[in-house]
Amino acid sequence: MIGNNYCVIMAGGVGSRFWPLSRKAKPKQFLDILGTGRTLLQQTYDRFQTVCPPENFLVVTSAEYVDIARKQLPDVPPENILGEPARRNTAPCIAYATYKIKSKNPDANMVVTPADHLVLYVEQFRETISKTLQFVENNDVLATIGIKPTRPETGYGYIQMNNKVKDSETGIYKVETFTEKPNLEMAKIFLQSGEFMWNAGIFISSIKAMSKALEKHLPDVDYLFNPQVNGGVDLYNTDAEQDFIKKVYSAVISISIDYGVMEKAENVYVMPADFGWSDLGTWSSLYDYSKKDANGNALNSDNVLVIDTKNSIISAPKNRLVVVNNLENAIVVEADGILFVSGSIEEKKIRDIVKKVKEEKGEEFL
Amino acid sequence: MIGNNYCVIMAGGVGSRFWPLSRKAKPKQFLDILGTGRTLLQQTYDRFQTVCPPENFLVVTSAEYVDIARKQLPDVPPENILGEPARRNTAPCIAYATYKIKSKNPDANMVVTPADHLVLYVEQFRETISKTLQFVENNDVLATIGIKPTRPETGYGYIQMNNKVKDSETGIYKVETFTEKPNLEMAKIFLQSGEFMWNAGIFISSIKAMSKALEKHLPDVDYLFNPQVNGGVDLYNTDAEQDFIKKVYSAVISISIDYGVMEKAENVYVMPADFGWSDLGTWSSLYDYSKKDANGNALNSDNVLVIDTKNSIISAPKNRLVVVNNLENAIVVEADGILFVSGSIEEKKIRDIVKKVKEEKGEEFL
Repeated sequence: MIGNNYCVIMAGGVGSRFWPLSRKAKPKQFLDILGTGRTLLQQTYDRFQTVCPPENFLVVTSAEYVDIARKQLPDVPPENILGEPARRNTAPCIAYATYKIKSKNPDANMVVTPADHLVLYVEQFRETISKTLQFVENNDVLATIGIKPTRPETGYGYIQMNNKVKDSETGIYKVETFTEKPNLEMAKIFLQSGEFMWNAGIFISSIKAMSKALEKHLPDVDYLFNPQVNGGVDLYNTDAEQDFIKKVYSAVISISIDYGVMEKAENVYVMPADFGWSDLGTWSSLYDYSKKDANGNALNSDNVLVIDTKNSIISAPKNRLVVVNNLENAIVVEADGILFVSGSIEEKKIRDIVKKVKEEKGEEFL
Repeated sequence: MIGNNYCVIMAGGVGSRFWPLSRKAKPKQFLDILGTGRTLLQQTYDRFQTVCPPENFLVVTSAEYVDIARKQLPDVPPENILGEPARRNTAPCIAYATYKIKSKNPDANMVVTPADHLVLYVEQFRETISKTLQFVENNDVLATIGIKPTRPETGYGYIQMNNKVKDSETGIYKVETFTEKPNLEMAKIFLQSGEFMWNAGIFISSIKAMSKALEKHLPDVDYLFNPQVNGGVDLYNTDAEQDFIKKVYSAVISISIDYGVMEKAENVYVMPADFGWSDLGTWSSLYDYSKKDANGNALNSDNVLVIDTKNSIISAPKNRLVVVNNLENAIVVEADGILFVSGSIEEKKIRDIVKKVKEEKGEEFL
């Protein structure tokens, strides 16, 4: 049965938040950012091993990252690593994947997932995905995964469950509403209510249901990708696909699947889950999930000597001796010829700093 | 007349205090530590240009630094760059130079100087040296340069002048006493008295006077270097010099000229001077003499971007983009594959840190 499942890994992010560890030329998803021996993309692939066979993986990324993705996932057929000619957010990416899978197997089911998130408990993750696939197999729905919140996080979107509409067999709930990132006060209310889940950006549905939803809620996007309308002939999975896709991307709007489809659709469900999830979107979250020494320092190599230093992140090439004295809550990162030292971990400011680097030193340093 | 003057540059230090900027393989004197375009050794050579001709310079350094010294001073005849087979402090070094010069010109005068100090006002410096040479030319004395102290420094030795014995023509004083590094209380008294000068480690005398002093106060050292006694034949400035010197250094004790000669001799004079001197012995002194930005940051390249950072020293290879955020009184140094970040400038602690590096990572990182 797993031969009917497809896994679409969205790997197009540029991950500037971990600059200079993550660079435009090699963003976060292609890095072994936690020192596990596997990059985040590889970890994502690994955790979907039981969901679908290697030939049913699609990786959608920017054209410039196709080579690196192919190298990192040698078991996925190279033609399944798709390079988007332009960055157009998640809806066009998912429309592309949907049509491509539909052309091979219109009865397939699909899981769409970001490439750069962390999952600690892979068994629970697989169980969650499996149950959700079971639900979408038999229902014309769009399902999402909702992470049980553990803190009033203002950096994530939330999904409110409708407690009255629950599938007793799988435990999935109908969605009441999608919300944008809340302020702290609102996030606290969300947390207390027990009805709100973090939106993990994972979407599960049959190809049929997603096709229908795209046609209904994003007809302009759907029109461009639909070969029956646009070209008359199905060019997906042929030599002509790339040229066709180039034209589509030059015309298609940039829009997220959340905003374009999920928030509008009536048949959206959310599976509450708790599998040790993080979007690894900030230095703080990276710090939280890193191995730390007795003084709370996250060090990426044995070649780092820390003296009177606490709760700091230190990352450098393995061959470099790094000696750090008298810092607290600091970041010391050296990567690819760039050295970044910050005496504090302030996510917003780090974004401003990267902007300043771009302005003062040029785009090539991003 | 300057053809009768010799300049002996002592360049054997290992300069671990600026680790990792200064490394055992390339210590401070061989670095352009202030970004002036000339290394400290080259600056020392430059400021003695009017004192003696290039062929009258001797550079005494460790055998391992001979090549680098020759490269940095191409106008000095290569045979004038002497490699000591072992580190034996300043007295053997000066005895070696004294005998070598004596063998060529027993009537010469000699200035002995460290290679790694800073002099800001070269004209004043030259005037001071010139006057002192004038005095030693006509008197059987050992002269030193005393720097007028500007603060109660506890890191230097002091020289007390005898105010009653002054040469009216040159302004040089007889020395009352040499003192070791004082504690702060004593240093304050020294400063207030007006009688105490910093010992700059510069010694000026005729070859005759230095020979006599070595023979009298360090007879064991003098005996080993004296060809008339040791070998019977003068081997200096011949092909046999190196082998002879190897034997001498394997036997000679390690002792400073201050302790071995200056503190004991009766005929020592000090020329008070004020030419913007620093021994550049600490990060703080390096910081003091470095060019700084509006926020008091000493940056060694235009490729350093500082944000909310004050009074810090940042040094890295020119091709490396360095971004520093939210530090104060910090050191960020990257050199030769080593990165050192310190949230504070504490000289003593930095010495301990270098010791720790040696213990935990090995001597090759010094």
